[in-house]
Amino acid sequence: MAIKHVVLFKFKEGVGESLIAELIEGYKALPGKIDVMKAFEWGKDVSVEALHDGFTHCFITTFADAAGRDAYIPHQAHQDYVKVLLPHLDKLLVLDFEPEVVK
Amino acid sequence: MAIKHVVLFKFKEGVGESLIAELIEGYKALPGKIDVMKAFEWGKDVSVEALHDGFTHCFITTFADAAGRDAYIPHQAHQDYVKVLLPHLDKLLVLDFEPEVVK
Repeated sequence: MAIKHVVLFKFKEGVGESLIAELIEGYKALPGKIDVMKAFEWGKDVSVEALHDGFTHCFITTFADAAGRDAYIPHQAHQDYVKVLLPHLDKLLVLDFEPEVVK
Repeated sequence: MAIKHVVLFKFKEGVGESLIAELIEGYKALPGKIDVMKAFEWGKDVSVEALHDGFTHCFITTFADAAGRDAYIPHQAHQDYVKVLLPHLDKLLVLDFEPEVVK
């Protein structure tokens, strides 16, 4: 069963726009390096309900199955990216789900 | 530009499985009542990184554009559902983004 891997970022105060752009490019480069990332999309928060709890960026990766997700987490390219990214994050949220497509 | 509307739930302690199932059915019924919900999928958290901050359910609605999202929020069927749902939630997170599809 497919897995959607939802990741939310809140950057630390003082992390500038150019560094944020660079860090996002780093994430966007991962699907080219990690085959089990079957789909990948992302965007900046544009919500209007003030319920985003400070998170400003959302990234969704689709894996074909749990084995794909389990291969992704320890993948060297992912681990290298996490090492560069984490010092700049105030908050990180990750939730995976097996989507039931209702519509 | 399309909008993905990501919603995370954490139910209050003591909210039982049958009530949770009923509340999820209520959300799943919305796309049948609200035309601007162009796609809808959901699932329970199956993440393994312990970064889900207590959230246990994820729901993703796709709107064709911001106007669709803006029509959804005040829609009577949505508002009726929110009224039933909210008393049972410990936490709610909502983040919208205009997806850039990388892969």
